[in-house]
Amino acid sequence: MTDSYTVVGKSFQRIDGIDKVTGAAKYATDLKFENMLYAGLLRSPHAHAKVTHIDTSAAEKLPGVKAVATLFDVPKVVQYWFFLRTEKKKKQMFLYDNIVRFIGDPVLAIAATSVDTLKKALSLVTVEYEPLKAIHDPHTALKETEVSIHKKGNIAFKVNKEFGNIQEGFKAADIIVENTYHTSKQKHASMEPIGTCVASFQSNGKLTVYSSTQLPHWSQHYLAEAMGLSLNKVRVIKPFTGGAFGGRCGVIHGLEVMCSYLSRKTLRPVKMSFTREEDFSATETRHPMTIRMKTGATHEGIITANEVEILSDTGGYGTHYIGVIADCMSTGIGLYKIPNYSFSGIVVYTNKSLCGALRGYGNPQMNFAQESQIDIIARKIGMDPMIIRLKNYRGEGEMDPVLNQLILSNGLEECLKKGAQSCGWKEKRSRLPGNDSIKKGIGLSIMLHGTGAARALPDPGSAIIMINSDGTANLHTAAADEGQGNRTVLAQVASEILGIEFKDISVSETDTDITPLDCGTHGSRQAYCGGLSVRNAAMDAREKMLAYAGKLLGANPNQLMIKKGRIFEKVNPDNYISIKDLMQKIQIEDMGVCEQIIGSASGIAPAMPGYYGAVFAEVEVNTQTGEVKVIKLTCAYDVGKAINPEMVKGQIVGGGVMGIGFALTEGLQLEDGHVLNPNFTDYRLLRSCDIPQIEAIIVESNEPTGPFGAKGIGEGSMVNIASAISNAICHATGVRLTDLCITPEKILQGLKKIECG
Amino acid sequence: MTDSYTVVGKSFQRIDGIDKVTGAAKYATDLKFENMLYAGLLRSPHAHAKVTHIDTSAAEKLPGVKAVATLFDVPKVVQYWFFLRTEKKKKQMFLYDNIVRFIGDPVLAIAATSVDTLKKALSLVTVEYEPLKAIHDPHTALKETEVSIHKKGNIAFKVNKEFGNIQEGFKAADIIVENTYHTSKQKHASMEPIGTCVASFQSNGKLTVYSSTQLPHWSQHYLAEAMGLSLNKVRVIKPFTGGAFGGRCGVIHGLEVMCSYLSRKTLRPVKMSFTREEDFSATETRHPMTIRMKTGATHEGIITANEVEILSDTGGYGTHYIGVIADCMSTGIGLYKIPNYSFSGIVVYTNKSLCGALRGYGNPQMNFAQESQIDIIARKIGMDPMIIRLKNYRGEGEMDPVLNQLILSNGLEECLKKGAQSCGWKEKRSRLPGNDSIKKGIGLSIMLHGTGAARALPDPGSAIIMINSDGTANLHTAAADEGQGNRTVLAQVASEILGIEFKDISVSETDTDITPLDCGTHGSRQAYCGGLSVRNAAMDAREKMLAYAGKLLGANPNQLMIKKGRIFEKVNPDNYISIKDLMQKIQIEDMGVCEQIIGSASGIAPAMPGYYGAVFAEVEVNTQTGEVKVIKLTCAYDVGKAINPEMVKGQIVGGGVMGIGFALTEGLQLEDGHVLNPNFTDYRLLRSCDIPQIEAIIVESNEPTGPFGAKGIGEGSMVNIASAISNAICHATGVRLTDLCITPEKILQGLKKIECG
Repeated sequence: MTDSYTVVGKSFQRIDGIDKVTGAAKYATDLKFENMLYAGLLRSPHAHAKVTHIDTSAAEKLPGVKAVATLFDVPKVVQYWFFLRTEKKKKQMFLYDNIVRFIGDPVLAIAATSVDTLKKALSLVTVEYEPLKAIHDPHTALKETEVSIHKKGNIAFKVNKEFGNIQEGFKAADIIVENTYHTSKQKHASMEPIGTCVASFQSNGKLTVYSSTQLPHWSQHYLAEAMGLSLNKVRVIKPFTGGAFGGRCGVIHGLEVMCSYLSRKTLRPVKMSFTREEDFSATETRHPMTIRMKTGATHEGIITANEVEILSDTGGYGTHYIGVIADCMSTGIGLYKIPNYSFSGIVVYTNKSLCGALRGYGNPQMNFAQESQIDIIARKIGMDPMIIRLKNYRGEGEMDPVLNQLILSNGLEECLKKGAQSCGWKEKRSRLPGNDSIKKGIGLSIMLHGTGAARALPDPGSAIIMINSDGTANLHTAAADEGQGNRTVLAQVASEILGIEFKDISVSETDTDITPLDCGTHGSRQAYCGGLSVRNAAMDAREKMLAYAGKLLGANPNQLMIKKGRIFEKVNPDNYISIKDLMQKIQIEDMGVCEQIIGSASGIAPAMPGYYGAVFAEVEVNTQTGEVKVIKLTCAYDVGKAINPEMVKGQIVGGGVMGIGFALTEGLQLEDGHVLNPNFTDYRLLRSCDIPQIEAIIVESNEPTGPFGAKGIGEGSMVNIASAISNAICHATGVRLTDLCITPEKILQGLKKIECG
Repeated sequence: MTDSYTVVGKSFQRIDGIDKVTGAAKYATDLKFENMLYAGLLRSPHAHAKVTHIDTSAAEKLPGVKAVATLFDVPKVVQYWFFLRTEKKKKQMFLYDNIVRFIGDPVLAIAATSVDTLKKALSLVTVEYEPLKAIHDPHTALKETEVSIHKKGNIAFKVNKEFGNIQEGFKAADIIVENTYHTSKQKHASMEPIGTCVASFQSNGKLTVYSSTQLPHWSQHYLAEAMGLSLNKVRVIKPFTGGAFGGRCGVIHGLEVMCSYLSRKTLRPVKMSFTREEDFSATETRHPMTIRMKTGATHEGIITANEVEILSDTGGYGTHYIGVIADCMSTGIGLYKIPNYSFSGIVVYTNKSLCGALRGYGNPQMNFAQESQIDIIARKIGMDPMIIRLKNYRGEGEMDPVLNQLILSNGLEECLKKGAQSCGWKEKRSRLPGNDSIKKGIGLSIMLHGTGAARALPDPGSAIIMINSDGTANLHTAAADEGQGNRTVLAQVASEILGIEFKDISVSETDTDITPLDCGTHGSRQAYCGGLSVRNAAMDAREKMLAYAGKLLGANPNQLMIKKGRIFEKVNPDNYISIKDLMQKIQIEDMGVCEQIIGSASGIAPAMPGYYGAVFAEVEVNTQTGEVKVIKLTCAYDVGKAINPEMVKGQIVGGGVMGIGFALTEGLQLEDGHVLNPNFTDYRLLRSCDIPQIEAIIVESNEPTGPFGAKGIGEGSMVNIASAISNAICHATGVRLTDLCITPEKILQGLKKIECG
């Protein structure tokens, strides 16, 4: 390998682009099979109730109704991934007892020959409920002793951890800042609704499931356990997917099991496809959190202590709630070298729709609180917010105390400097707000996010590469592409190593029968972990290619290089053979060989490197209406190495948009457990006219463990947008907001408070 | 490995059995896609004519007609496999000039929205023909100077080869026998008609073809060349296939290209599916041959010379005609150590439907002639036909002069002895015919057939095995299963090596995007070549498994064994771990590893071993009607090692049935180029009531190069049935037939000749 790459670092068009723009791409919702049944869920209208009686007789008599699954016959499942509405170990997945825990909680499922029949059948079911007292507020859940949402109580999880000595830390501080922050119940709002799957049980006992999952192999593992099948009898195929953002690695597994159960019962393919309303009100959201944070610092801007107390509300059930709160801790501590740090977290159940993974995991919530705190301290001690960060961030060569690993690359300083330079930070920050009713401000924030989950979770990645006799190649990887384009990036990695043109590398569908074990697309892992697998498989193939080429060229394979389809001697480039000719020879022409070159690799990444970013937000606040307009975001991210810069920029811009939504407009509104805005009309996603200029700056720190130096970007790009915007609002108006999303009302309230002094 | 196998040698049920009996199995004819067009060919009503004008205007105007392909716009193709209606190198595949060469020769293709529209459209095309003189007889074709079927003349191929000194051979002979034999134009008559394919060109430029081909990867190569695509842009998927017998490795490629062309033109999936009549009259048949054979022997039964002259009739075009005639030579010389052998062959074109590969290739024709000659000599010198064969066959340790390889296994003697024993040869052979009008007779014959084509053709085989975390496995092999069950056998090979239960091994579909390079299913190669690939891939996986197990068990991996799902120390079987636990550990639980075990292998087999067989046929000949009834076949074949004995017996019984058909009833009847029996009513396949007892005896010679000692069986089992039956008829009646198939008329004629004396 040399530093001058041929393919890596170039912005190739995504390999599935044409399929998508021509409509040839089939999404799970597009799938239709012969004899397919349509399944749907009857959902609870109560936030908390006991189901005392279910009468399905009228529904079952309806012609076209083929199967009903009640709480007594649904499959059990063993925990493989995060808890999925289950207690640990063998528990029923859906309807695991006769209690409904949120409005929308499934009571039973029906499979029928058409959607109309299904709707009619669902309406014919009579369910008798005995309402229970509902808890909507997490603080109430914590204190409540009489009402217990789950058998074990209302507390799902607790964690307490201290690093250093928090009391000593505060003693060493010159100033101490304490605030309580609240974050909203943000929804993924992916273009394709969460929750589509088709399960088809064949007469030979094999189950095939088409699912818009982020975790095809874990879906396979789940299904195998739930249905009592071995893994070779379960095939999970992931069709094109219209965005995931964490929403396809939780409830989706329950859906897959339910469809499989109904398919086994009927021996027909069964499809379930949530409506947008179901997606919004009955699939996971971001965990709303209340974060109390007490931070101490010296006059010199050295942060000496941070005390964090989080109450996380996971709703009626929990998926990923441990991981999410652990992520608050690791990203908080990982970002700054604060010597004394105390972290305590509690996750409670409430009678609201459930929470799970959403881009950034627990990081956006934590970052909003912590980056606000740092900003407040900077303001108090009169220090440039950039300087205080440069003084305290945990840089290259230091240990990450949570992940217990050395930081091998950290381009945060460059991010800050390039971002500041590009947005004119110094000048704009020193600008006075003026007397206009429109106040201008600029704020910044930084972030760290982990790449992958090596050694923290089962985190396998694998790849197989087969070189064809014309010198093209087929790459098998289960690295699920949810729309971000990682299949394109992985083809680039293979292309670079093999010296085969990018266009000549095809990437397989994600299909557990075909593609080797991969733990799925989450944790910003696929450029790094997926990339490493592909790199290693390509190296394996490359070695075999060079061995043959060496024989033919009369050269030591170690002295050979590949570039642009040619294998040649380093010292004598005229002694060469094209890959095409070599493959043609060894696969077809040399009848004493006939070997296809196959390379493979499997395993975990050597590390879980952090990637870093600095965001500069420029806002205009209308002090009369409270309206906030984001004028520009300047987002500089250290991605290690941008294998496909345009794709990285796509992530940065996309994260920016989602971050502005998290800051200003998004969040489910609930009233007595009812979701008031379960659709795109009422849930206020940013429209294109709302989106400001977003400048994406790529910083390359060259992570030594990464493929060509790459690490992640996907999740982190939304993490610190809200904090930067909030800091900018404070710069513009002096108003410090601690409650997301930041509505005009909150701004006006804040302004009033300042006025009232 | 030890000799006591757990899985190999056991008759597991075929893995696709349930799919087939429940109807879940989808054959190419069952496939239907959205927007699919139906394509069909307009065929010539003339045996030989020049197309002077085509008017498609009326057809093109018909609503629903989407594309017409005439001779001017069909794709070109490079020769990869045998000639396929092409000259060598770039030539048009179909309609390559304006001459039609047999009744049924395609003139153009139309794709329409329904079968009815297609039929209507074909009827609206006007073609003007200028008839040319047709040649129906191969002898005429040879002599004819004025009419030339192809530009290069009427001779497609010539071969002359002498081993030893033929004149000296005859000098050394005490008796010389000379006869001329004729064989018929047998059809594959597979359950699913030959010639079904669906091609689908996607907007992204990728072509997917579903084809009932025997050679998925060569289909892919063909298509890539013809359509100007790279191999990674061409995907060939082989659905379930209803029998092939050689019929799916010739014309099918032209069909695939034609459908792809029409699909590219319309950007819709295009399906073509030949009718039974088209199958019978316009796809390949066995090459009818005229074989003059002059054989010399001593009184002691030592054969000193054989002079062979073959005229092979390939019809209007040729596929496989070189290979087929070469096979006559290699199987003839390979079977007997005749020191002086002269072989000359000529293949001619005639204006009949084309010929190609059919189970046995050229061997059944050659075997009929040569085994008749040997039988005549035995009769003349008064020697038991078994003894003369034992004296002359080419045994273990001798060289095969054509293949130029040492014979490492040959169980022919055991085949003869066990077969003779079982059928009561001695007693029945010495029985006098009696005075009844029903004469009983018994006859025998032997044969050799090659396994695979290593070093004679590009003969790659490959496999990939992935072990799942529950200890089950997925095997990827392109070893196309046409119904014979080789996928089952390959799963057994993997199971034996890996110690994973048979049921826990899944075998992939045959799909060139997924399965590594394989040259297809032909030449009885898949148990041997396919088996070797799977064995080697499994060994690769096994080695990786043992390395991990060694670490865990604190043992040297070389000292470990696998049996029945357990890995244990040879010297201390109590020190063990189950494969399931090991896989669970290294793939999931040990988060520092997370490696899926992937094994792979690719390459050619080390040899092309011959497999051998002896057939004893018992017949009753009604001397009044000329009817021949086969009472029993005793078929003993040396298959090296029967990995799945029932499956081997299936091949032996199936070959027996096809062989009886070849002997007594089958063959296309042509009159002026018209096929008179292009359907199952008139083409006289054996019905189940016609099938005698067929005893299958498996002899295992343990081929050292084979997987567990295995070699082939598929083709050979039909090769020497006709010769055994003919020899039995002669034993019963004294009538020596030289012309297949042996109809009652020919028997009666023969009896009359004897009477007339």
